[in-house]
Amino acid sequence: GWGQPQIGVVHVRGVLTNARPVTHWIETLRQKNRVKGVLVRINSPGGVVAPSQEVYSAVSSLAEDKPVVVSMGSVAASGGYYVAVGAPTIFANPGTITGSIGVKAQLKNFKGLLDKLGIEDETVVSGPLKDATSAAKPMTEAERKYMQGMVDDMHAQFVQAIAKGRDMDLEVVRRLADGRAYTGRQAKDLGLVDALGSMQDALDVLRHKAQVGTDYALVEGPERERSLWQWLLS
Amino acid sequence: GWGQPQIGVVHVRGVLTNARPVTHWIETLRQKNRVKGVLVRINSPGGVVAPSQEVYSAVSSLAEDKPVVVSMGSVAASGGYYVAVGAPTIFANPGTITGSIGVKAQLKNFKGLLDKLGIEDETVVSGPLKDATSAAKPMTEAERKYMQGMVDDMHAQFVQAIAKGRDMDLEVVRRLADGRAYTGRQAKDLGLVDALGSMQDALDVLRHKAQVGTDYALVEGPERERSLWQWLLS
Amino acid sequence: GWGQPQIGVVHVRGVLTNARPVTHWIETLRQKNRVKGVLVRINSPGGVVAPSQEVYSAVSSLAEDKPVVVSMGSVAASGGYYVAVGAPTIFANPGTITGSIGVKAQLKNFKGLLDKLGIEDETVVSGPLKDATSAAKPMTEAERKYMQGMVDDMHAQFVQAIAKGRDMDLEVVRRLADGRAYTGRQAKDLGLVDALGSMQDALDVLRHKAQVGTDYALVEGPERERSLWQWLLS
Amino acid sequence: GWGQPQIGVVHVRGVLTNARPVTHWIETLRQKNRVKGVLVRINSPGGVVAPSQEVYSAVSSLAEDKPVVVSMGSVAASGGYYVAVGAPTIFANPGTITGSIGVKAQLKNFKGLLDKLGIEDETVVSGPLKDATSAAKPMTEAERKYMQGMVDDMHAQFVQAIAKGRDMDLEVVRRLADGRAYTGRQAKDLGLVDALGSMQDALDVLRHKAQVGTDYALVEGPERERSLWQWLLS
Amino acid sequence: GWGQPQIGVVHVRGVLTNARPVTHWIETLRQKNRVKGVLVRINSPGGVVAPSQEVYSAVSSLAEDKPVVVSMGSVAASGGYYVAVGAPTIFANPGTITGSIGVKAQLKNFKGLLDKLGIEDETVVSGPLKDATSAAKPMTEAERKYMQGMVDDMHAQFVQAIAKGRDMDLEVVRRLADGRAYTGRQAKDLGLVDALGSMQDALDVLRHKAQVGTDYALVEGPERERSLWQWLLS
Amino acid sequence: GWGQPQIGVVHVRGVLTNARPVTHWIETLRQKNRVKGVLVRINSPGGVVAPSQEVYSAVSSLAEDKPVVVSMGSVAASGGYYVAVGAPTIFANPGTITGSIGVKAQLKNFKGLLDKLGIEDETVVSGPLKDATSAAKPMTEAERKYMQGMVDDMHAQFVQAIAKGRDMDLEVVRRLADGRAYTGRQAKDLGLVDALGSMQDALDVLRHKAQVGTDYALVEGPERERSLWQWLLS
Amino acid sequence: GWGQPQIGVVHVRGVLTNARPVTHWIETLRQKNRVKGVLVRINSPGGVVAPSQEVYSAVSSLAEDKPVVVSMGSVAASGGYYVAVGAPTIFANPGTITGSIGVKAQLKNFKGLLDKLGIEDETVVSGPLKDATSAAKPMTEAERKYMQGMVDDMHAQFVQAIAKGRDMDLEVVRRLADGRAYTGRQAKDLGLVDALGSMQDALDVLRHKAQVGTDYALVEGPERERSLWQWLLS
Amino acid sequence: GWGQPQIGVVHVRGVLTNARPVTHWIETLRQKNRVKGVLVRINSPGGVVAPSQEVYSAVSSLAEDKPVVVSMGSVAASGGYYVAVGAPTIFANPGTITGSIGVKAQLKNFKGLLDKLGIEDETVVSGPLKDATSAAKPMTEAERKYMQGMVDDMHAQFVQAIAKGRDMDLEVVRRLADGRAYTGRQAKDLGLVDALGSMQDALDVLRHKAQVGTDYALVEGPERERSLWQWLLS
Repeated sequence: GWGQPQIGVVHVRGVLTNARPVTHWIETLRQKNRVKGVLVRINSPGGVVAPSQEVYSAVSSLAEDKPVVVSMGSVAASGGYYVAVGAPTIFANPGTITGSIGVKAQLKNFKGLLDKLGIEDETVVSGPLKDATSAAKPMTEAERKYMQGMVDDMHAQFVQAIAKGRDMDLEVVRRLADGRAYTGRQAKDLGLVDALGSMQDALDVLRHKAQVGTDYALVEGPERERSLWQWLLS
Repeated sequence: GWGQPQIGVVHVRGVLTNARPVTHWIETLRQKNRVKGVLVRINSPGGVVAPSQEVYSAVSSLAEDKPVVVSMGSVAASGGYYVAVGAPTIFANPGTITGSIGVKAQLKNFKGLLDKLGIEDETVVSGPLKDATSAAKPMTEAERKYMQGMVDDMHAQFVQAIAKGRDMDLEVVRRLADGRAYTGRQAKDLGLVDALGSMQDALDVLRHKAQVGTDYALVEGPERERSLWQWLLS
Repeated sequence: GWGQPQIGVVHVRGVLTNARPVTHWIETLRQKNRVKGVLVRINSPGGVVAPSQEVYSAVSSLAEDKPVVVSMGSVAASGGYYVAVGAPTIFANPGTITGSIGVKAQLKNFKGLLDKLGIEDETVVSGPLKDATSAAKPMTEAERKYMQGMVDDMHAQFVQAIAKGRDMDLEVVRRLADGRAYTGRQAKDLGLVDALGSMQDALDVLRHKAQVGTDYALVEGPERERSLWQWLLS
Repeated sequence: GWGQPQIGVVHVRGVLTNARPVTHWIETLRQKNRVKGVLVRINSPGGVVAPSQEVYSAVSSLAEDKPVVVSMGSVAASGGYYVAVGAPTIFANPGTITGSIGVKAQLKNFKGLLDKLGIEDETVVSGPLKDATSAAKPMTEAERKYMQGMVDDMHAQFVQAIAKGRDMDLEVVRRLADGRAYTGRQAKDLGLVDALGSMQDALDVLRHKAQVGTDYALVEGPERERSLWQWLLS
Repeated sequence: GWGQPQIGVVHVRGVLTNARPVTHWIETLRQKNRVKGVLVRINSPGGVVAPSQEVYSAVSSLAEDKPVVVSMGSVAASGGYYVAVGAPTIFANPGTITGSIGVKAQLKNFKGLLDKLGIEDETVVSGPLKDATSAAKPMTEAERKYMQGMVDDMHAQFVQAIAKGRDMDLEVVRRLADGRAYTGRQAKDLGLVDALGSMQDALDVLRHKAQVGTDYALVEGPERERSLWQWLLS
Repeated sequence: GWGQPQIGVVHVRGVLTNARPVTHWIETLRQKNRVKGVLVRINSPGGVVAPSQEVYSAVSSLAEDKPVVVSMGSVAASGGYYVAVGAPTIFANPGTITGSIGVKAQLKNFKGLLDKLGIEDETVVSGPLKDATSAAKPMTEAERKYMQGMVDDMHAQFVQAIAKGRDMDLEVVRRLADGRAYTGRQAKDLGLVDALGSMQDALDVLRHKAQVGTDYALVEGPERERSLWQWLLS
Repeated sequence: GWGQPQIGVVHVRGVLTNARPVTHWIETLRQKNRVKGVLVRINSPGGVVAPSQEVYSAVSSLAEDKPVVVSMGSVAASGGYYVAVGAPTIFANPGTITGSIGVKAQLKNFKGLLDKLGIEDETVVSGPLKDATSAAKPMTEAERKYMQGMVDDMHAQFVQAIAKGRDMDLEVVRRLADGRAYTGRQAKDLGLVDALGSMQDALDVLRHKAQVGTDYALVEGPERERSLWQWLLS
Repeated sequence: GWGQPQIGVVHVRGVLTNARPVTHWIETLRQKNRVKGVLVRINSPGGVVAPSQEVYSAVSSLAEDKPVVVSMGSVAASGGYYVAVGAPTIFANPGTITGSIGVKAQLKNFKGLLDKLGIEDETVVSGPLKDATSAAKPMTEAERKYMQGMVDDMHAQFVQAIAKGRDMDLEVVRRLADGRAYTGRQAKDLGLVDALGSMQDALDVLRHKAQVGTDYALVEGPERERSLWQWLLS
C-alpha cells in the first residue's frame, strides 16, 4: 500500500566471492525513503577477504544513516562474522556457528602423485617467487615465509575491524582470534554478539528501533544468483 | 466456500537446513483468521541445529495463539523431534522412528589416503585452531576438546528444550538422551509422545480441539522446494 | 454417464515410502456416493513400516463403509502384505509372491574399506548411541541389542495386525512369520489369502458384493507419482 | 469405413512385467462387435510369472468368444510360450525360438567382493528367512530348500497350464519341460505349436476362421509403452 | 503427376531384428497399381533368423506379382543374403561383402571374472537346461550338444532356402556354406549373385523388365526407424 | 537470375560409408540444363569399398555428359583417391595428402584381455569360417588366407580402375600402389594428379572448359548429413 | 534522463585471453560525450601476455582523453596488474591480492606415464625445435634455453610498462618483480597502488575528478561473455 | 549509412582445418566496392597444411587488388604465420607468439599398452606401406623414411612461401626455420614481421593506406562456426 513503511532485508548467503550484488542492494535500500530500518541476515561460512571487506564497509556506512540489526542463521563464521561487526546490534541463535576469526590459504602439492604417475613439471618462470603456490612441487622455506606474511597481514586487518566494530581491546580480540568457532550462546558470553534469538526476534527489535508498527512490508534482496551446479545441489 | 473454516498443515520434510520456508508459512497461518487449528506433520531425520531451533520457536509461539497438534510420519528424529516438543499434543505411528536426542559432528580425515596418493597438505593459517576440522590431517587433542565442547553445548540446549516442552525432569531427559532412537510405541511408553495413530487420527483430535466439524478445508504448506537432484531421486 | 455406478481402484505400487497419495485417494473414494465398492490392487515388495501402517489403517476403515476386495499382482510381500490384511477378501494369482512377514534393517559398515583407503572417522557425538547406525565402524554388542529391540518391536506390531485382520491365532501367525515368502497358491493353503485368480476375477467378485452389474465405470488412482529416475528405468 | 469388419492384433512384446496394458486391450477387443477375430502376436523372452498367468487367462477367456490365432515372431519363450497355450491355434516361423518351459530365480551373492572391499554386512532381521535372497551372504541349505520349493511350485503351475491348453499328457509335457528352447520347426514336430509360417500366413488362417474377406482393417494394440531407456536402445 | 509410373524401393538396412516395417511396406507396394516394379536395396550384415525368414517370404511372394530386382550396397551378408535369394535377379558391386552363409550363437561365460571379483552365482532352476545360456558358468557337454542342435537346424533351413531360390544343388550350396564371406565379384563367379553394378545399373535393368521409360518416380520406404543412439552415431 | 549459367559443386566429405547422397546429387546436376560444368571437391580419407565404387561410377558417367574437374582439399586418400580417377582433370594443393592406394581390414583379437579378465568365449557356429573375424580368438592360418584373398581381390579392382581412369600401365600403377600416401606435389610428379592449385584455381579452369564467364552461380551439394556426434566434434 | 552525466565502468574479469570485448567497450566509452569519467574495475588473476598488452594500451590511450580510476576487487595479479598501470590512479582493498609481476610457461612432460602405459612417441618433425613444448618427452638443454629466452623477453616488456606507468626506476621495479604477490595494503606501502578503499570509494574520487555530482548514471560493460562451462561453475 | 566507406576484417581463428569460410569471406570482400581496405586478424596456432595454403593464396591474391594489413593477436604460429606472409604489412603485439616455421606429424604407437592388455593386432593389408601410421605397431625404418620424406616436402613448400612473401633469401629463412617460436618483438628484429602494435594501431595504418578517415564502418567475418564442444569450453 502507499505510505506503508518498509523493512529492508539484506541476505548474505553462502561462500563470499562477489560483493557487488550485496553492496548494490544495500545502496538501493539506503536511497529508498520508505525503508525505515534494515536487517542483515547472514548464512555464510566465509569466503574471500576483499569482498568481505567491501560488504563490511557498506554495512558500517549504512548504519550511519538508518537502524541496522544483524540476524545470524545456521552459520556466520570467518568472513561471515567480519561482515557482521559493522552493525551496532547482532542477534544469533543459540546453536549458530560463528567466530572462526582467522585467515587460511589452503595449499597442496601433488609432487608425490606426479612422481608416481611419471609426470614431470618443467615450468619456466621469470622470477623465483612466481610459482610459489605451484601444486607441482613442495613449498620452499622462502615461499612459506612469504605466504605466511600475506596471511598474517590479512589477519591483522580482520582483528582491527572487530576491535573497532565491537569496541573491544585489540589484545582481547587477539586472544579470541585463534581461529576457533563458537556457538551463538558461547559468542554472547564472550561479547562477540549481543543477543540470542531467531530472525523473528531480531525483526521485532529492529522495528522497535525504527519505530515501525505491525503494518509494514519486507523488502528482501539481493536476487538469488546461483549457478546451475548450485541449483542442482541445494 | 466463504466462511468455511480451515485447518492448516505445516510440513516439516527431509533434512532441516533452511527454516525460512516453514517459519514463513507458520506466520502466514497465524495471521489467517479462518485457520482455526494447525497440524504439524513431521517426516524428518533431523539436520542443522539453528534451523531446528527457529522452527521449534515458531511452533511454540503459534501454540500460544491456536490449537496445535503434531503428527509424525515415517521418521521424526533428532532435529525432527526437537521441532515437535514445542507443541502440546504429539501423535506418532507405532512404527515411526523418533527420539535420537543428541548432536553429532561427522568429521573425517583423509591423511592416509593423501599419503598413499602422494598429495601433501601445505595449508598456511593465521591461528592454531583455524584448521581444526581439516580433512587433510588427524585432529589433535586440543582440537578434539574444542569440538567436544561445542557439541556438548548444543546437546545441553536440546535437552533443556525437551524438559521444558514435555514438562519432564532434566535428569530424566538426560538419561533418555544417549542418542538412541525409539519406535513410536516405545516413545509413548516413555512419555516422549502423547498418543499413537495415523495422520487422520491426529486430524480428528485437532478438529475437536478447534471445534471444527466435518465441513472444512485443508490448507497445506510450505511449497515443496526441491533441488533438481532431489527431484530426480524421489 | 449420470447415475452410472462406479468401482474405485486403489493402486499400491512399488516401494512404500509415502502413504499420503494412497490414503488421500482412499478418503476421496469413501466420500464419493457413486463409488459402490473398492478394489485394492497391490504390486509392492514392501517398504517403510509407518507408511504401511497408515495405509493398512485407511483400508480397514474404508472396509467398514463399503465392500473392499484386494487383488495381488506380481508381488505383495512384507509391507505389501501388511496393507492387504485390513480387507475382508484377498485374491492372489497362483504365481504371486507374497508373505515375507518380517522386518529388516539393512545395515553395513565400511570400516575395512576406509582402512584400506586411509580414511579415518573422527565423528564427535553427544551420547554413546547417537552413532549406532554409523557406516564407518562395526556395531558394538550394545548397539546390536538396541537395534534388535527396535526390529522386534516392529515385528510384533506386524504379527498382531495379521492375527486381527485374518482372524488367526497369534501363535499360528508367529510360526508363519519367519520371514519367508509364499507363492499365491501356497498362501491360500495357509489361510494367508482367500482365493486364487486374476484382477478380472477379483473385480467380478467385488461387483457381486457391491451389487453392480455390467454397466459401470472404473475410477483409478492415485496418479502415478514417479521420479524422473524411475520413469527412465521402467 | 462403416461396417467394414476388423481383425484385432494384440502385441505381447519384450519382458513381461505388467499385464494390465495387454489384458485391458484384450477386453476392449472382446467388447467391439466389429472385431471378428484376434491375432496374438508374440515377441517375448518371458518375464515374471503372475503377469504371464494374467495374460494367459485373458487369452483363454477371449478364445471362448471369438476366433483367436497366435503368431510367434523372433522369440516366444518361457512366459512368452505360457501366454500362447491359451489359444487354439499357434503359428511359428521355422526359426522362431520357443519352448524354454521352466522357472528361474537368478540369485547371486557378493560376499567375496564385499570381503575384498572391506564392507561388512550387519543386517538385523526379525526372522531367520527374512534375508534369504540377500546378496550379501551365501544361501544356507535351509534357504536353498525354501527357494527350490517356490520355484518348483511355479513350475508345476506352468506344466499344468500347457497340458490343459495343448491337450497333452502331463507326463509328456514334463519330459519336454527341462528348460530347453526349441526352434519353431522342432516345436511343431513335438506338438508344442500347430503350424509353420509368417505373420501374414497366420492372418490368412485367422481370416478364414472369422469369415473375413480381403476388405478389412487391422486394429493393433496396446500402445507401445516404453521407458526412455528402452527408447534410446531399440 | 497423374498416371506417371512408379518404381518402388524397399530398403533393408542394418541389423535385422524387426521384419514388420519392411513386410508392411512390401505389402503396400504390392497393392499400389502404379508401382510397376520393385528394387530391394540391401545394406545389412544380417541379424535374427525369424525376421530374415519373414522378409524372404514377403520378397518371394511379391516376385510372383511384379518384377523384382535386388541391389546390394556395402554389405549383404548372412541374413542380408537370405532376404536376397527370394528375388529372381541379384546385382552386387564388385566390392560388396556378401555370402557368410551360416548361423552363429555368440555365447560367453564370465565365471573367471565372477570368481576374481568374489561374486557367486546361486541361481535356482526348475530344470537342467533352463540355464543353458547362463553367462555365469561354463557350458556343459549336454548344453553344448543342445545349442549345436538348434544352430544346425537353423543352418539347414538357410541352405534349403538358397538352393530353392538360386536353383542350385543342395550339395553345392552346402560346400559354399562354411560361413565365409565373398566379394561381389567372387559371388558372381560362384553363382550366388547374377550381375555386377551399382544401384543405378540395377534400376536400369528393372525399368527394362517393368517396361518403364525415363519418366517415372521413385517411391522409397520404409521410414528410417532409428533409436536415438543410432541417430547419434551414424 | 533467369538464364544465368550454373556451376555445380559435389562435396565428397569425410569417411565414405554411404554413396546415395552423393550419387543422387550427381544425378540431379546431370539433369539440370543450366549446370554447364561440375567441380568435385574431395576432402576424404577413404572409407568402405563399395560406396567408393558407386561414386567413382557416377563421376565417370557424368564426365561423358559435361565438363568435370576434381579439386582436392586437405586429404583425398584411398577411397578418396578412387572417386577422383573417374574425372579427366584433377587439381590438388601442394600440401594435400593423397594416394594411399590399397585396402586394409583392421582386425584385432582380445583373447589375451578376455583371459586376463576371466571371460570365456563359447560361440557355437554352423560352419568353420563363420566366426573368422571374431575378436574373441586369434585368426587361424586358414582364416588369414581367406581374409587376404578378399583384400587382394578388392585391391586388384582398385588398381584396374586407376589404370583405366589415368590411362597408365597396370604395372606402373601396381608399383605406386604399395599403400603409401603422397603430397599433392609428389602426386603431380608421378602422374597421379594433373595440376597444383587451390579450389579457386580449379574453378577457373572448369569455367574455361564450360565456357562460363564471370557471371555465374555456384550450386553446392549434397546437404551436410551429420550425426549429432560429428556435429559436436567438428 | 536527457543530459544526465554518465560514469562508464569497464569490467576486466577472469583469465585474460581475449582483449577485443574490453578494448571495444573502452572505445565506445571514449566516443560517448556524456561519459565524463571511467572506472576500470579489475578482478583478474592474469592470463595471456598479448591481450593484457592490448588492454593496457587502450587504458593508457583513454586516460589521455578522460579521467580514469582503477578499482581492484578480489584479485588483480600478473596480467591483471599489467592492465592497471596504464591508469593515473589505482585503488585496492586492503585484502586485494595484487602484484605477481612475472611470466610463467607451465610446461609438463608425461614421458614416465607414457612409458608405464606402453605408449611410444614417434613424432616426425621438420626441424629440431619444432617439438620443444612436447608433453611426450623431457626438454633438452637447448629447448630450455630457448623457452627461458622467450619468458625473459616478455618479462622485460612487463617491467618496462610498470616503470613507465608508475613513474618508478627500472631497478626498483625489477627488485619487486620476483613474481611474488602483495596484499593491497602492502602494495600501497610499496607504491604499486595509490590508495586503499572499496569500489564505492574509488567511484567517489572519480566523480570528483570528473566534476560529476550525485545525479549520474553508471554505464557498465562489456557484456559477460561466458561459456556454458563457466556458467555452470560460478 | 549510404556511401560510407568500409574496412573489412577477416578473422583467422583457432586450429586451421577448413579454409572455405575464410576464402569465401575474402572473395566477398574483394567484390564489395565500398570495402576500401582489409585487415587480416590472426589468432591461430596453425593446423593442417593444405588449408593454410589456400588461405595464403587468397590473401596474396586480394593484396593485388586492395590494401591489406595483418594484425596478430595472442598467437600466429606455424600455419598461422604461413597465412600472414601473403600480405605486404604485418603487425604483431610485442608479446605475440609467432614463428614456429615447420611441419610436425604427431604419431604414436600403443604396442606396449596393447601387449599389456592382451589385445593383438591382426590387420590384413594389400601393400607394405598401407598401415604405416598404424597406432598398433612401431614404425619400421622404411616407414620412418617415407614419413620424413612427406614432412620435408611440406616444409620446403613453407620455406619457399616465406622467402617469396617476405622477400628474403631462401638460406636466411632456412636458418630461422628450425621450428622455434618468437615473441613479436624478436620477430620484428628478425624481419619476420614489420611493426609492433595493437589491432587499433594496425587499423590506423590500414586506414591511411586506404585513404579512409574517421567516418567508416567495420565489416567483420567469417561467422564464428563453432562446434558445441568448442562453445562449451571457450
